[in-house]
Amino acid sequence: MPVSLFSSQVHAGLFADDSLLPILDDAGDVRHMVRFEQALAVVQGRLGIIPAEAARTIEQGLEDTLPDPASLSGGTASAGVPVPALVAALRKMAGEEAGKWLHWGATSQDVMDTAQMLQSKACLEILEPRLFRLIDTLETRSNETAEQLLAGRTRSQVSTPVTLGYRIAQWAHPLIDAGNDLAALRASALRVQFGGASGVNSAIAPDGTGIADALAVELDLQNAPSWHVNRTPLLALSAWLQRICAALAKMAGDLIVMGRTDIAELASGTGGGSSTMPQKSNPVQAETIQVLFQIANHSHGVLASAADPLEERDGAKWPLEWMMLPQMFLAAGSALRHAQALADNLRPDAARLDAVLASNPEVMAETASFVLAKAGIPRADAKDLVARAVSDKAPFADALANLSPVQINWQTALDPQLVIEPCRQMSGRIFARRVSK
Amino acid sequence: MPVSLFSSQVHAGLFADDSLLPILDDAGDVRHMVRFEQALAVVQGRLGIIPAEAARTIEQGLEDTLPDPASLSGGTASAGVPVPALVAALRKMAGEEAGKWLHWGATSQDVMDTAQMLQSKACLEILEPRLFRLIDTLETRSNETAEQLLAGRTRSQVSTPVTLGYRIAQWAHPLIDAGNDLAALRASALRVQFGGASGVNSAIAPDGTGIADALAVELDLQNAPSWHVNRTPLLALSAWLQRICAALAKMAGDLIVMGRTDIAELASGTGGGSSTMPQKSNPVQAETIQVLFQIANHSHGVLASAADPLEERDGAKWPLEWMMLPQMFLAAGSALRHAQALADNLRPDAARLDAVLASNPEVMAETASFVLAKAGIPRADAKDLVARAVSDKAPFADALANLSPVQINWQTALDPQLVIEPCRQMSGRIFARRVSK
Amino acid sequence: MPVSLFSSQVHAGLFADDSLLPILDDAGDVRHMVRFEQALAVVQGRLGIIPAEAARTIEQGLEDTLPDPASLSGGTASAGVPVPALVAALRKMAGEEAGKWLHWGATSQDVMDTAQMLQSKACLEILEPRLFRLIDTLETRSNETAEQLLAGRTRSQVSTPVTLGYRIAQWAHPLIDAGNDLAALRASALRVQFGGASGVNSAIAPDGTGIADALAVELDLQNAPSWHVNRTPLLALSAWLQRICAALAKMAGDLIVMGRTDIAELASGTGGGSSTMPQKSNPVQAETIQVLFQIANHSHGVLASAADPLEERDGAKWPLEWMMLPQMFLAAGSALRHAQALADNLRPDAARLDAVLASNPEVMAETASFVLAKAGIPRADAKDLVARAVSDKAPFADALANLSPVQINWQTALDPQLVIEPCRQMSGRIFARRVSK
Amino acid sequence: MPVSLFSSQVHAGLFADDSLLPILDDAGDVRHMVRFEQALAVVQGRLGIIPAEAARTIEQGLEDTLPDPASLSGGTASAGVPVPALVAALRKMAGEEAGKWLHWGATSQDVMDTAQMLQSKACLEILEPRLFRLIDTLETRSNETAEQLLAGRTRSQVSTPVTLGYRIAQWAHPLIDAGNDLAALRASALRVQFGGASGVNSAIAPDGTGIADALAVELDLQNAPSWHVNRTPLLALSAWLQRICAALAKMAGDLIVMGRTDIAELASGTGGGSSTMPQKSNPVQAETIQVLFQIANHSHGVLASAADPLEERDGAKWPLEWMMLPQMFLAAGSALRHAQALADNLRPDAARLDAVLASNPEVMAETASFVLAKAGIPRADAKDLVARAVSDKAPFADALANLSPVQINWQTALDPQLVIEPCRQMSGRIFARRVSK
Repeated sequence: MPVSLFSSQVHAGLFADDSLLPILDDAGDVRHMVRFEQALAVVQGRLGIIPAEAARTIEQGLEDTLPDPASLSGGTASAGVPVPALVAALRKMAGEEAGKWLHWGATSQDVMDTAQMLQSKACLEILEPRLFRLIDTLETRSNETAEQLLAGRTRSQVSTPVTLGYRIAQWAHPLIDAGNDLAALRASALRVQFGGASGVNSAIAPDGTGIADALAVELDLQNAPSWHVNRTPLLALSAWLQRICAALAKMAGDLIVMGRTDIAELASGTGGGSSTMPQKSNPVQAETIQVLFQIANHSHGVLASAADPLEERDGAKWPLEWMMLPQMFLAAGSALRHAQALADNLRPDAARLDAVLASNPEVMAETASFVLAKAGIPRADAKDLVARAVSDKAPFADALANLSPVQINWQTALDPQLVIEPCRQMSGRIFARRVSK
Repeated sequence: MPVSLFSSQVHAGLFADDSLLPILDDAGDVRHMVRFEQALAVVQGRLGIIPAEAARTIEQGLEDTLPDPASLSGGTASAGVPVPALVAALRKMAGEEAGKWLHWGATSQDVMDTAQMLQSKACLEILEPRLFRLIDTLETRSNETAEQLLAGRTRSQVSTPVTLGYRIAQWAHPLIDAGNDLAALRASALRVQFGGASGVNSAIAPDGTGIADALAVELDLQNAPSWHVNRTPLLALSAWLQRICAALAKMAGDLIVMGRTDIAELASGTGGGSSTMPQKSNPVQAETIQVLFQIANHSHGVLASAADPLEERDGAKWPLEWMMLPQMFLAAGSALRHAQALADNLRPDAARLDAVLASNPEVMAETASFVLAKAGIPRADAKDLVARAVSDKAPFADALANLSPVQINWQTALDPQLVIEPCRQMSGRIFARRVSK
Repeated sequence: MPVSLFSSQVHAGLFADDSLLPILDDAGDVRHMVRFEQALAVVQGRLGIIPAEAARTIEQGLEDTLPDPASLSGGTASAGVPVPALVAALRKMAGEEAGKWLHWGATSQDVMDTAQMLQSKACLEILEPRLFRLIDTLETRSNETAEQLLAGRTRSQVSTPVTLGYRIAQWAHPLIDAGNDLAALRASALRVQFGGASGVNSAIAPDGTGIADALAVELDLQNAPSWHVNRTPLLALSAWLQRICAALAKMAGDLIVMGRTDIAELASGTGGGSSTMPQKSNPVQAETIQVLFQIANHSHGVLASAADPLEERDGAKWPLEWMMLPQMFLAAGSALRHAQALADNLRPDAARLDAVLASNPEVMAETASFVLAKAGIPRADAKDLVARAVSDKAPFADALANLSPVQINWQTALDPQLVIEPCRQMSGRIFARRVSK
Repeated sequence: MPVSLFSSQVHAGLFADDSLLPILDDAGDVRHMVRFEQALAVVQGRLGIIPAEAARTIEQGLEDTLPDPASLSGGTASAGVPVPALVAALRKMAGEEAGKWLHWGATSQDVMDTAQMLQSKACLEILEPRLFRLIDTLETRSNETAEQLLAGRTRSQVSTPVTLGYRIAQWAHPLIDAGNDLAALRASALRVQFGGASGVNSAIAPDGTGIADALAVELDLQNAPSWHVNRTPLLALSAWLQRICAALAKMAGDLIVMGRTDIAELASGTGGGSSTMPQKSNPVQAETIQVLFQIANHSHGVLASAADPLEERDGAKWPLEWMMLPQMFLAAGSALRHAQALADNLRPDAARLDAVLASNPEVMAETASFVLAKAGIPRADAKDLVARAVSDKAPFADALANLSPVQINWQTALDPQLVIEPCRQMSGRIFARRVSK
């Protein structure tokens, strides 16, 4: 067991993410905090609040080199937050003259919160195309399998037929909802934070609002009043990521069951070998998605437990956000990556899929009830009759023909192919919900 | 310890809610399920799918009397879901002829999910005015106290001055965000569910879509494709309620601290007595809000853990939604009720509030640093000088005057009243975010 | 969706528990608080701390009638705790003279905590025989099926054969561990609480310790120093209940999969019908156990989040314990009840069980590797050879015979029956762990 | 925000732990897995199951060099578990002849579970002396402050006096409970796992039991039947660590409040500076303990959610244990470290502590009620009289003297010093519970 599956080199291939890690590793973390200090100097220089020369020096002097993350450890341990040590290091890099204008009017939380938003924005830019590509792939797969029947299962029991295409459309359904909500999420959650010591920029009054406005433009974030104690932006991001992970866990759960040796209706991914059993093909990617969902689900809970900070800043809650939001992004990012690999490589076994329906003709029992009811048989009688036919030794259609008081072409009426069109229609309604691409 | 604080008569006054309970108690629960069956019959009668006479009988026959909830217990225990027993009872009530058309083409999940949405809608109709009234109250209180200074606290330490009005504005801030999101939430979450056995209305094809369309209108819910395995609507409702509870817990946490015997800056509510200590005034309402937030936070986690149902329906997850969503509504509803009582009855103690600032003149230390820095003193020197002044025996302004190499009117420069305007401005920006009322 | 699945009459048959509810419903809750007040008076009378006559009046006067729980609602809402209203009601019942000696030296938390322990003790007395009876039943079932082969599955794939008896022994394994820990749990967790206002019985010094000693004897609880802010007893009870629920959820999860229409290796329980599909047999009891585990798991988390109370008593955390511990008991109690019903009615389908092994001869692949390795074939070569045999068209044993460079009686070497003895041995080791019965 | 606060170099000083990290980092993780393979070979060589020469080569060949953790990433990503890649690397290191006997009869889970137990054992060996040293320190501090009065607070209100020594004794109370349970925890939880593919050692029958016996001795773990699907050992470890973290969070919460600028009764630790406010002394260590408790609390929940694995091994749950148990150890370890630093450096401010009592004479109101009641005043009258005295303008003792119908020496009767002895007695009872040192 390692310190964290997300940081362990052993487990990196499954849980970490080569695209997201550079945003969230120590260097990425520091770089985004420095980005805030640069942007602050730039806009304050532009607004004439600090000398233009100092602003230029800060902007350019911090561009290419970063303080060593490890050098901030002692300062962070003492202050509980890396900013004082970081600012000291940056001041040294910027030189005495420019250095004194660095971090002008800002407090640690301005740096941490805004850097977190910049990191979130960068992460979303990676997740967004993954999400839409996956929806595209699922739509394609759904269309390709729109005529492949599948025994639907409810509460683990074979119920009535659907199509594989419909089941796949439902995998896409919550992802489409999430995709549709993404623009609003960006617009409401990705907020710049600039408030100074207690949130109202009193030390640099009346310049606070102007600086915040300009910072938002400079960093391409939403302008907003100080949200140091209003953690809505983080809750909204986290809840959206939780939904992504839940959606993918549903797809993963279905794939694990469909890929069981016992069922083998749909293979996916490449399968992990066993250390001792050569015949096995473990559904490692799907399992990992389910693991990531559990982690994300609880991470959201921890993050939310920090959403009621005391007074103007709460050191007993705040670090929970730094701990949990990255795990939400990594979980969603890795889960999307694995889900894409699975969706790219779905291999239905038509023979197995059809065989389940053939060997469970009573999947059409519900339909038989409706046919009888439409033919005027009282409902309770119809249900009884169908139940008797199900337990009859004769083939289901024959049994129905024998038992039914009315003449019905049961072969036609019970043809599972009849569900293809309703499945296509419902799948179509799902994909028609897509607003954004 | 009782079965549930929400259902215990002993604890009813604090945790339960006279407005929400009639929606969520057994009778309310059954009534909303019956409402689905009535509406289904009505629209199917209108569309000519079932006989108009049967539809009328069902609509009217189920209007005034409900099956006894206790009578459904055995059937629910056997089926895992109350619908089969309920439908049997309703068929009896509707008579044999109409009864056979009752629940036509519907499955248990159609009833349960749609009833849950109707209950959610009814709950939101109660929560919405509570939310907006509370925001109104907080805006009024914030304005009233816009000139009352308050020693800001960060990480439990006195930091820099703000106003009481600003702190109250921040209590409203996440509520305003939640209020702004409410219309979109309703539009996306309150969806009708109608899919039949496996979600595609195959037994009554091709009538499913038309019935769903009409049902949505009849029940004033959003039309949507079958979401039996896409639990986004519940996740979105729950996440929004979690945000409400977090916001109120922040306000409650502040009130508990501000009302401590030690601090006594702001009294609120009426205070609970002690069984043995007559002098005490326990902050029962604020504490209860914090309790409700913890319950809501974990309830959301359980609900989310059910958001990856297996295959077409998952009996090992589904009931978690029935268990948890009501608790989210009750928690948010009771928390809003208590918060309103607290906000209606805020009693600042101006003398205590001002005394804290007077006895901690170093709250202006940050400002002093900025004044010195603007006067050209290098930053490190300025910080040193201020630190020396803080630990000097002389009054802070005098010490600064003694130590400072430049001439500054410290009395004016360090006047805490200077924060009133920045606080008013930031509070104004917060309340200006309100979109909906 | 109802207020709570535990209190809803609709859902009572599944989630509530006729044996536990009388301990935890409002009347039971009040009765156990009254029991504390009676016992306190009795021992104080015996010790001469209060008049013997008053003690007798309190003991007898509160024996037969209880205050109406609903009458305590207003007082509870105001005080945040039912005790002041309860004590007032009891004083009225005891009369003026005796009444003034009632609750002598006690504080609300003494009443609530001790009553909670009395309720916990009563609940454990119901759970204990359920637990041991279930272990007995599982041992019997395990013995009965000790020769029934079962294709083991790891990571959802058929792996190597075990016996059904072994799988059942593993269901019992965590229950045996829990049973073995029960005596120590009782001895450490079921503590009397008596500390007065701030925990040290200062108002009645130096009588506190003597009263606590006598109370523990009178109530058959453990004596212990005041634990008003040491919540270990609750955490220990809850963690033990969490383990019970986890253990039963494992058994339930296996039963759901084994009872799938697709697999049908082992039927259990009676099966829930569907509102529309007559052929279905839903695994309602097993699903309910899984639901209860999720609820218990999160309930434990909430309860633990209250385990760091502030100062001498924390009203913002304490009620979480009243909310969550009963749910832990109800969840464990109902889960044990359902598990017993399932264990009483396990119906293995020998033909299906054997057929899986017959159609997956490669389950013996691992054994084949070992046989080859023991015969001196280098491990990598052995693994390759077996892998080729698995993918060969010929029957596995024949393919091995063809490919193997050494002569081996593959029919004998690969006989799945060879696992029966190792399974019996490991099952025996599991059941041999039982300490208590 | 970094990948993980536990692995980030920036945050290392607060969250990570120089003693625990070498056990849990990638190298430590790999080393403990290798240790299992060595021990397995050693005992199998000794038992004559594999050649003695191969055993020696494996034992010695793997002693000094470890495979590079990063080299296992690809294999782990493919298999979902590092063992196949690790075994391949180790076989290469051991050479062809010995290599084929490496991992003989073991499965991945044997390696992972046993390594996890070895890591847990090593972690406990670090935590144990920390725990007992902290209890010792708290006992010393409690004794030192046994006569320092402190205004007790219940529900955030000043209640009745206690001593600082008593409050500190209560900080130790749950730690003493945990310490007392440690021996039993080790004896029941630290189990060797050896079961082979499906748990019964069928491939190497009948040698499994003998090897497991010898392995337990060799690795100094408890022998036990295969627990691949009985996760009790992990649940027990985790629940114990959760209790440690809760206990420390209680102490930390008290310290944060006692160290508030407003209260300043007890300073502790060294205090973190602010980036902009020189006067501040943030309670970074105490806040970090509270953060760690939240993380631990939720980590336990995730770990428990994996305690119902499906069938013989469940890849969708298992990795949650690898993710969460290390976080539990790191959280408990860092929290103990910070708590020790705080306990080593408690600085009570006697003047402030006494001043609170002096300015709240009504803290003796409860005592006054008892004095009156003992003097024969009916309880309701006594309570009324005291309430009037509390709100009287005269000093409390004078007001009582004026109002009381009986003659009492109120100065003596209300002397807060009277609580010192009861506090000492209760503290003594707490420390007397210590069984182990």
